[in-house]
Amino acid sequence: MDMDYKVRQQKLRRKLERLKVDALMVTHLPNVRYLCGFTGSSGIFLTAPRPVFFTDGRYTSQAAGEVQGTRIVIAKNGVMAAAAAACLKLRLKRVAIESDYLTVAQLQALQQALGKSVKLIPHSGIVETLRIIKDSEEIQCIRRAVQLSSRLFPSLLKSLRPGVAESTVAARLAFSARKAGAQAMSFETIVASGSRSALPHGVASAALLPSAAFVVLDYGVVLDGYCSDMTRTVHLAKAPAAARKLYTAVLEAQLSAISAVRPGATTGEVDRAARQELKRAKLDRFFTHSTGHGVGLEIHESPRVAANSQAVLQPGMVITIEPGVYLPGKCGIRIEDMLLVTETGYEVLTPVGKGLIELN
Amino acid sequence: MDMDYKVRQQKLRRKLERLKVDALMVTHLPNVRYLCGFTGSSGIFLTAPRPVFFTDGRYTSQAAGEVQGTRIVIAKNGVMAAAAAACLKLRLKRVAIESDYLTVAQLQALQQALGKSVKLIPHSGIVETLRIIKDSEEIQCIRRAVQLSSRLFPSLLKSLRPGVAESTVAARLAFSARKAGAQAMSFETIVASGSRSALPHGVASAALLPSAAFVVLDYGVVLDGYCSDMTRTVHLAKAPAAARKLYTAVLEAQLSAISAVRPGATTGEVDRAARQELKRAKLDRFFTHSTGHGVGLEIHESPRVAANSQAVLQPGMVITIEPGVYLPGKCGIRIEDMLLVTETGYEVLTPVGKGLIELN
Repeated sequence: MDMDYKVRQQKLRRKLERLKVDALMVTHLPNVRYLCGFTGSSGIFLTAPRPVFFTDGRYTSQAAGEVQGTRIVIAKNGVMAAAAAACLKLRLKRVAIESDYLTVAQLQALQQALGKSVKLIPHSGIVETLRIIKDSEEIQCIRRAVQLSSRLFPSLLKSLRPGVAESTVAARLAFSARKAGAQAMSFETIVASGSRSALPHGVASAALLPSAAFVVLDYGVVLDGYCSDMTRTVHLAKAPAAARKLYTAVLEAQLSAISAVRPGATTGEVDRAARQELKRAKLDRFFTHSTGHGVGLEIHESPRVAANSQAVLQPGMVITIEPGVYLPGKCGIRIEDMLLVTETGYEVLTPVGKGLIELN
Repeated sequence: MDMDYKVRQQKLRRKLERLKVDALMVTHLPNVRYLCGFTGSSGIFLTAPRPVFFTDGRYTSQAAGEVQGTRIVIAKNGVMAAAAAACLKLRLKRVAIESDYLTVAQLQALQQALGKSVKLIPHSGIVETLRIIKDSEEIQCIRRAVQLSSRLFPSLLKSLRPGVAESTVAARLAFSARKAGAQAMSFETIVASGSRSALPHGVASAALLPSAAFVVLDYGVVLDGYCSDMTRTVHLAKAPAAARKLYTAVLEAQLSAISAVRPGATTGEVDRAARQELKRAKLDRFFTHSTGHGVGLEIHESPRVAANSQAVLQPGMVITIEPGVYLPGKCGIRIEDMLLVTETGYEVLTPVGKGLIELN
């Protein structure tokens, strides 16, 4: 997939002019990838005056193949040292750094290499606020990742049998995902069955699937660097009436939150839509996490879709909607789709049905 | 496995006394785990005057089950805020932080919460220098992780057939590992075949195994939190004489480095032993990385086994020995074992043979 790195770099440049810095030193690898295409594990992107990318000798050929619109420098003695030397040579005075990712030790080493002539200015979220709006190439990548994980769902269902370990289910899923072309799972797969379904983060354990209970399945893949994320909760054996009622309440909360998605709405409003629906069913106090999050090159990105969040939805944002209800020691249910915010409202990207599935 | 957290905490306390700080705020999760047993994803360990562990509401029951020798505080508004409040309440004046892991933004937020009465002092490697010597419980865990990954090797060999994708080989290995009880792979599995074997970091790709060539297999598992790491290079079909010769040179370099392992030797000497052996075969310039690294709760730990390193080997250290030779565009070979440094020399932990395997 060819990304338009030039446009991204231009947008970033305009942003930096407003912040009154001479350059941004980008060290967070997803941000580096976003700006020049490099997918390796060692690299720094420096914005000014013209884009430069620093990596080490292991990545000489990979960088030549991947990096676009950016001069490449192969560092002999560490990428940070090479980036510092470039700042000095370019006589930069004010260089912004990514304070959410640079460690205290890295900042110390960098400042020492730079001496007093360069002022390092901690900034937060500069590239991330660009990444929050996905361009058309990114949306295509995300669609493909979502489609790949959705295609795995039927065989995932088939692997659910009483007596099989949750971890076996997760391992089979990972195997199918890799065979289908996924680079990796986008996070540690959650297979939480029976009373474990009440754990919002019940990653697959050695527990064996019971004969009759809910199973929460929360997983995603990475494809071309982009993540997908989906959750379905299914019931082993026929669900009792109370379980069905609970499921319906969560599904209605999810649908209600989805309906609230449109450009101009705050993510707090979307979160409230889910909570109000659950309140009607007297279940709101069992919904103990936020309603969703952005997804892209990273599995958790801006915006948060959380109570009281003032983040405003805009076309091109990709978010999850994933309310859940967790009755401690008993059971839990979560239903999650990925959505694209469009000019007129939203598009649900996840093509998997949400009616309650009861497995024999 | 019951670890002796009290002893570890005591050793740390003595170390901090020498450093003249009132406390260390431990934020790096492997260090937190080492000091109190917590395995979750959100927690801070504060040493003084008595050990306190801070986590959030998601981990209430997990912390109660895991954390030993340490008071537990469930934070309501963030673990960092709770740790800061404790520093103020305890009237600590000088608090060391882990500068290799704390981000610039975290340091800023922490300093703001603490005001001027608490001085934060960046330190590096305090807990890591304790972790470098493994205690007997840790050695047992590491042995088990090494044994598990070694047991997977025969079936890994069976999965190697011309035309199978490297990524399928890696996915099958991950599946077997999970079924055998591994929590995870300890790093992204390397399956590098044909000319890709010349890439020291050739993680499994979509490339199909050729009918006659080297395949580098570098993998490990995590078991009870501890990592294993091993590499074998095998040949699909009968190896030509030149390939055999290359293999023998790498194996001799590896054996030579192993022989140099003993308490009191520097890791630089061990590295040199491998390089000198390769020099004899005129291959030293194709050995482009260091000879090894420590392994434990993390896959890469101290000490580095690298050229000119002055780190001194001591009983209880666990290191890899993994020289390699990479002929760009042609082929590569690497052979890696894990070793325990003993009172008298070393013990090779990896029980898998190293004669050249030629697969039909």
